[in-house]
Amino acid sequence: MPALDEFELIRRLFAPLAAGHPGALGLADDAALVDCPPGRRLVLTTDAIVAGVHFLPDDPPDLIARKLVRVNLSDLAAMGAEPAGALLAACFPRGVDASWVERFAAGLGADLTEFRLPLLGGDTVATPGPATFALTALGTVEIGTELRRSGARAGDRLWVSGTVGDGAFGLFVARGEAKELATPHAAELLDRYRLPRPRLALGRALRGVAHAAMDVSDGLIGDLGHICETSGVGAIVEAARVPLSDAARAAIAAGLGQGLLTALTGGDDYELLFTAAPESDAKLGALSRDLGLRLAPIGGIIAGAEVRVEGPGGERLDMPRGGYRHFGR
Amino acid sequence: MPALDEFELIRRLFAPLAAGHPGALGLADDAALVDCPPGRRLVLTTDAIVAGVHFLPDDPPDLIARKLVRVNLSDLAAMGAEPAGALLAACFPRGVDASWVERFAAGLGADLTEFRLPLLGGDTVATPGPATFALTALGTVEIGTELRRSGARAGDRLWVSGTVGDGAFGLFVARGEAKELATPHAAELLDRYRLPRPRLALGRALRGVAHAAMDVSDGLIGDLGHICETSGVGAIVEAARVPLSDAARAAIAAGLGQGLLTALTGGDDYELLFTAAPESDAKLGALSRDLGLRLAPIGGIIAGAEVRVEGPGGERLDMPRGGYRHFGR
Repeated sequence: MPALDEFELIRRLFAPLAAGHPGALGLADDAALVDCPPGRRLVLTTDAIVAGVHFLPDDPPDLIARKLVRVNLSDLAAMGAEPAGALLAACFPRGVDASWVERFAAGLGADLTEFRLPLLGGDTVATPGPATFALTALGTVEIGTELRRSGARAGDRLWVSGTVGDGAFGLFVARGEAKELATPHAAELLDRYRLPRPRLALGRALRGVAHAAMDVSDGLIGDLGHICETSGVGAIVEAARVPLSDAARAAIAAGLGQGLLTALTGGDDYELLFTAAPESDAKLGALSRDLGLRLAPIGGIIAGAEVRVEGPGGERLDMPRGGYRHFGR
Repeated sequence: MPALDEFELIRRLFAPLAAGHPGALGLADDAALVDCPPGRRLVLTTDAIVAGVHFLPDDPPDLIARKLVRVNLSDLAAMGAEPAGALLAACFPRGVDASWVERFAAGLGADLTEFRLPLLGGDTVATPGPATFALTALGTVEIGTELRRSGARAGDRLWVSGTVGDGAFGLFVARGEAKELATPHAAELLDRYRLPRPRLALGRALRGVAHAAMDVSDGLIGDLGHICETSGVGAIVEAARVPLSDAARAAIAAGLGQGLLTALTGGDDYELLFTAAPESDAKLGALSRDLGLRLAPIGGIIAGAEVRVEGPGGERLDMPRGGYRHFGR
């Protein structure tokens, strides 16, 4: 287990990820330089992940890095922004194996390349605790077109992209708690948990169409609560309309977690949840075809402050207090 | 020990720190929005700190937060930038006392206010490990005037601001390993270790004057090595010219650490180290008076790649491989 040197590590593994972007200054300066194109505004977000909390210590390190990139890109997608760069604060456990760091850097590099995201800077430190990473992603958006959580209006239709619940069930698979699932279903759910697809093209296309948008990271119902609270509205979700993958249906049939409830309140989907006027239905249908991405109307925005989930007969389904919470349990 | 709820925590403690900056969107959106003034360029830096590595677990939480802000501002200072905002990724230990978080947030708020730095966003998570924080600071600088590490030229004079070594000796005090020091000296060193003064005004004033600059965070000699490597030059440091505070002299006299060697190679000073043409001597003298901040010429830049430290008689002093290293020891 060769010992690691911070500066050598930066040079050897991370500096190549900054290559081609002059503002990163080869990661050899105190800070990075970025120009904002005229007429555009910067969009900034940061997410932290901790071994044992946000990923499993024996997850493949390349996938940990890629998920970190993608959850941040998902936040940019939810604002309708174009990715522009990233900064990484990496806390590796003391005595970490160099090959683990190499695989982490390889995964990071793969996704930075795929999403054309230059590494602008960072900090690499050792920790006596679990591996911990914080990524700050930078994007740009045409001034005034950015999507926000706060614009939902009573009468809006509520939409979600892709399928919901795969991430939550994928966590059961990752933990080895879904042995009863058929292998292809298990593999699909695990992939969805480990490798979110940030909906960047959708986010960009929703500018001027969606009234409010956010990404589903903490669970559909909990995140919907954030849109409602920020917008000062309520919402009705028709549970039967929430799009589920075949794999998620199999997981529900197998009795994983709390079934549909887990799908509706689990996290890690990284789909976009948004509201739009009913007049936008046709436009959204066309967009769905263009992007090859399912867009499903799952309910509507109402006056008030209540987030109500209705079963197939219109009966009210009781939800636990929604959303993943890091503290207090 | 009341349990903490992430969202409640953000709302109650951190959202007020974003007040008055519309782009932070009340910390209630997926990402923050920032406009870059025309003619200016963005400067971005990130630093991570870990309990037990970068601060002591029983350090006052308000001072931990303030140091985190200041070490990042020091990076902006080293680029000659104006602070524009910050994003905080905070990993609090599970079961952390609410009052600890409150004191941390109070210190954060105090410094964000002092340095007029809006909190633009962040992420708050729980960790089974030590408290870990990553702050990303955003600044702006007039395009083309930013200071870099890479511009040092043979014949430049080498300068440093303030005094050197106080941070390193302050760490001995913080650890309770400096009982032999008089109380005022110990208090001064401890204060310097815990509460760096980012040299923002100096950094701004050095634009157009300094050929290369960086902040001394990992130790004077080690950091000088970075300037030399990035600039493709060597340097001579005249040890007798390195400015020491009375408190640091007392620490050396008391035999703390390795004495002068600790001052020259210890970290946490957050002074600016820079090079400038000898023709700038008068300008730098005037600047020192204007800012009320000592600026000391401590040597010069030479051709080659060697960083040589000379004693009072011109004899070569052997330095350990310079700089604080997080891994490999």
